[in-house]
Amino acid sequence: MTDVKSKLTRLGKEVLKQIEQGENPSLAVPIRSLSNVVYDEKTKLIRLGDKVSKRYFLNVAHAKRFMQTLLVAAKCKELLEENIHTSLRELFYNLKRTLPNSKENTFDDESESNPIIEDLEVMLDVLREQLHLGADPKGRVVGNITIVDSGDTIHLDKLGTGGWHIPSNVEDIKFKRVDADFVLVVEKDAIWERLNEDKFWKKHRCILISTKGQAARGARRFIRRLNTEFSLPVYVFTDSDPYGWYIYSVIKAGSMNLAYISSRLATIEAKFIGLTMSDVINYELKKWTIKATEFDLKRAKELGKYRWFKHPLWQREINLMLEKGYKAELEALAARGLRFVSQVYLPEKIKSGDFLP
Amino acid sequence: MTDVKSKLTRLGKEVLKQIEQGENPSLAVPIRSLSNVVYDEKTKLIRLGDKVSKRYFLNVAHAKRFMQTLLVAAKCKELLEENIHTSLRELFYNLKRTLPNSKENTFDDESESNPIIEDLEVMLDVLREQLHLGADPKGRVVGNITIVDSGDTIHLDKLGTGGWHIPSNVEDIKFKRVDADFVLVVEKDAIWERLNEDKFWKKHRCILISTKGQAARGARRFIRRLNTEFSLPVYVFTDSDPYGWYIYSVIKAGSMNLAYISSRLATIEAKFIGLTMSDVINYELKKWTIKATEFDLKRAKELGKYRWFKHPLWQREINLMLEKGYKAELEALAARGLRFVSQVYLPEKIKSGDFLP
Repeated sequence: MTDVKSKLTRLGKEVLKQIEQGENPSLAVPIRSLSNVVYDEKTKLIRLGDKVSKRYFLNVAHAKRFMQTLLVAAKCKELLEENIHTSLRELFYNLKRTLPNSKENTFDDESESNPIIEDLEVMLDVLREQLHLGADPKGRVVGNITIVDSGDTIHLDKLGTGGWHIPSNVEDIKFKRVDADFVLVVEKDAIWERLNEDKFWKKHRCILISTKGQAARGARRFIRRLNTEFSLPVYVFTDSDPYGWYIYSVIKAGSMNLAYISSRLATIEAKFIGLTMSDVINYELKKWTIKATEFDLKRAKELGKYRWFKHPLWQREINLMLEKGYKAELEALAARGLRFVSQVYLPEKIKSGDFLP
Repeated sequence: MTDVKSKLTRLGKEVLKQIEQGENPSLAVPIRSLSNVVYDEKTKLIRLGDKVSKRYFLNVAHAKRFMQTLLVAAKCKELLEENIHTSLRELFYNLKRTLPNSKENTFDDESESNPIIEDLEVMLDVLREQLHLGADPKGRVVGNITIVDSGDTIHLDKLGTGGWHIPSNVEDIKFKRVDADFVLVVEKDAIWERLNEDKFWKKHRCILISTKGQAARGARRFIRRLNTEFSLPVYVFTDSDPYGWYIYSVIKAGSMNLAYISSRLATIEAKFIGLTMSDVINYELKKWTIKATEFDLKRAKELGKYRWFKHPLWQREINLMLEKGYKAELEALAARGLRFVSQVYLPEKIKSGDFLP
């Protein structure tokens, strides 16, 4: 944390130095537009290229954003010093005011303050969570682990049917005991509740996470920390459709618009456990599939062009969907019995190591 | 639970008796359409009227739904006997099959099975949760309470920054210790995280719940149980806009489409703590308001016609919005300082008892 604070201090001191030397104060901001987003073959991550732009104070086109950058940076330093966290929206409201003797507001809309936060993340090479700014949290977790958070020792194997709500910021969480062999990430709460009721995580020694659709940043960081700090394999379990594949893709390789922090959010070792089109065939679930929409087919073709879906197994999966013209939900496994997913499907897949890369 | 099972058994036995007596088997199903929805002045709840329709087996227009009703009822009995819970979607998949020697499916779509579940709720006067069927869960809670859930003792004052995720079914939860003076329900996670970080619930002896927008059934039942079983006042804290008012309205008086179970989901004693239009004026937040849209104004007028918004204080609130033409978010309070909401605003409102009914 001191490290982040010193980065903020350094930023301010550099601007101060420029002023004292009579220079036009400027900030160097890495460019985050698509033109500077690259797929790094070596790290297998979407990341930012090397293009940087300069933001000058004495430039009519830059002045406002220059001021906004320093306002946000100063507020983040304050958050760290007071050890208080806040949301992007509250930060915006907190910083919005009218400049004296003018009709000019510091910020008119959150769409002005959010990009500044992203600028700071790349400028300082930190996560917004390290600046004490949280995104909307989503997701829940249970499993054979004990964590320490804000002084509370929390046993994630003693949380009944509810589980622990993953907060927006998991940076300061300490893992006291991790007694698990893998992490199972499911897209849907209904399946999470099924697996939790059947104590799947206890029988199969895993950590069970629900992302409730697209994974929030907190959940993605939580998954990544379990993977990198404890070398736990991560298996992602989503619907057999392009939306499910994209959820997996974001957990594994990062997203385009967060390319600048992929390396801290993504879990490149994650594997796709299902539901696959082959599962639909093998477990005779065709009757319980849903006709793919035009949008699904279009999206499937798009995803097929992503570098990390170029793998022959994924190409086969995507082509199978285009050919069959149907998709399937996780809940379709209930056609074989409500406990089929916990007692047959997942144990078989894990035992046989039948994953997509 | 035995009670629910015996209700299901009785339903089956009645049909069997009709068959044995050579009658055309039928089921009496209370009508759930708007024509049979009434506002009960005495209980102050939206509820169903007394209209009932008969569903006959030997009637081409009824036969399929008759079969569907018995299929769902039988499956629910099985769920209770096996003590297993499931979701509406899994139930649908589990029951969908093609009838032998035909092309007829038991259910083609979840939109066929969901209304049957609602039928059963009113026929048997039970909640779907008591039939072991869950809706999509949402919401989190912390506070000075200890609960017992599935054999786990959970201290809701020892859950760090995450809190307990409210599950879809809270019927079987036991409250072991409730050491609180009131329940504070907030619409937004960002505010919940602010109040949790400031340990507002500890200082002010309350139970702190986030609904994350419109409250899910599990959250509504949880709130209601705290209110009815422990006589705890419930204060609802939402944005100052028609959407926020509607969130409050649903927690307090129930919703139109769930009118048939309002009496088990609604917390009629709930009070609205804010954000009010008067707060915006009193705390000088006008600069941080948002222009109301055409839809907001239309919706405000509609809500003004609801019986429970006829109260003069609510009429004043709604008219103030129509007149000023702006709305305000909870996060706007951050303009007065990030901790203003926990250190000044809420304590002042609670101390002065400044609530809307």
